[in-house]
Amino acid sequence: MRFPLVEVALPAWIDAVVSDPAAVYPDLDAQMAFAIELARRNVAAGTGGPFGAAIFDMHTGRLVAPGVNRVMAANCSVAHAEITAIMIAQKILGTWDLGGEGLAPLRLVTSTEPCAMCLGAVVWSGVRQLVCGARDADARRIGFDEGPKPAEWVAALESRGIAVIQDVQRQDAAAVLALYLDQGALYTTPGRRNGPVGRVP
Amino acid sequence: MRFPLVEVALPAWIDAVVSDPAAVYPDLDAQMAFAIELARRNVAAGTGGPFGAAIFDMHTGRLVAPGVNRVMAANCSVAHAEITAIMIAQKILGTWDLGGEGLAPLRLVTSTEPCAMCLGAVVWSGVRQLVCGARDADARRIGFDEGPKPAEWVAALESRGIAVIQDVQRQDAAAVLALYLDQGALYTTPGRRNGPVGRVP
Repeated sequence: MRFPLVEVALPAWIDAVVSDPAAVYPDLDAQMAFAIELARRNVAAGTGGPFGAAIFDMHTGRLVAPGVNRVMAANCSVAHAEITAIMIAQKILGTWDLGGEGLAPLRLVTSTEPCAMCLGAVVWSGVRQLVCGARDADARRIGFDEGPKPAEWVAALESRGIAVIQDVQRQDAAAVLALYLDQGALYTTPGRRNGPVGRVP
Repeated sequence: MRFPLVEVALPAWIDAVVSDPAAVYPDLDAQMAFAIELARRNVAAGTGGPFGAAIFDMHTGRLVAPGVNRVMAANCSVAHAEITAIMIAQKILGTWDLGGEGLAPLRLVTSTEPCAMCLGAVVWSGVRQLVCGARDADARRIGFDEGPKPAEWVAALESRGIAVIQDVQRQDAAAVLALYLDQGALYTTPGRRNGPVGRVP
């Protein structure tokens, strides 16, 4: 075929973080701590932007799929943490609908509230619940743009049957965003959530 | 690695449609006709939903990357036509930013206006222009949901430097949506743009 296959993969360090595939993350705090740890490692390893996400079985706390921002590593502006987690979960479960019959209800836990793109992706994914750490405002504070996202996005998700929980460990999650800025990665393109953004004066 | 690589590929018939890799699509009409043809073939071949998109060099009309909806085929709710085209273009050009320095200005031509997710993806992609065939209303008429998209989405793109052109061959583009409905594919999940949607009474 003339046109290439597109591939999105997690960074190699993921296996060290998920050393026990049977590990259970029993509650929202444990699940959010995991998502934040993914974001932190992604920054520390230089493998992407300061965002982590993961999909869990809402009943058992079993991890289905982790995700991190892979935009620059994968040369793919779509590869935000939430999208990566959704794609991997769907690949593992063999379905485009994580809310399909026969599946346990699943939640997406994300270290920062979704951007406009990921908001739409959450709706199509089939997850039943979205749990957020840092707020949009925290991302904007370090120069990330959240995109054309409706002001009433929480209500828009809830009207589609997706419950939203905000501010879980917001401070810890926002600290990773600050860490990214402190590391002084070269940000060259203002106004993009993907990766490089304008250095905030 | 414990977690799989995610792959998104175009259907095999794409090579027959793009038989001459050097082909130029000289104007918006030729470019939109191509995007609509992709949508039509995707329906006819049963390889995805009734949506096609393509990225072109705005100066020369050269095709950079085509895209079609691959949600059900790829088990990936993210694989809308616009997203597929963006990912493939970025892979071909080796960059996550299609608006980066040294690249020709690129436009995304899509057979139907973008859903909420693809709207965000357009912003992050780096394309300079978005050209649309069918309207959101045409997609809604056959039961597709466009997701939580701001009413003022055109202005939101234009404020970010992305020009929007609507209604290019809208009737032809909408006809493919109707064709999809006529084919009577089994739609089982109401309210999802991805693929299966509730049959409109």
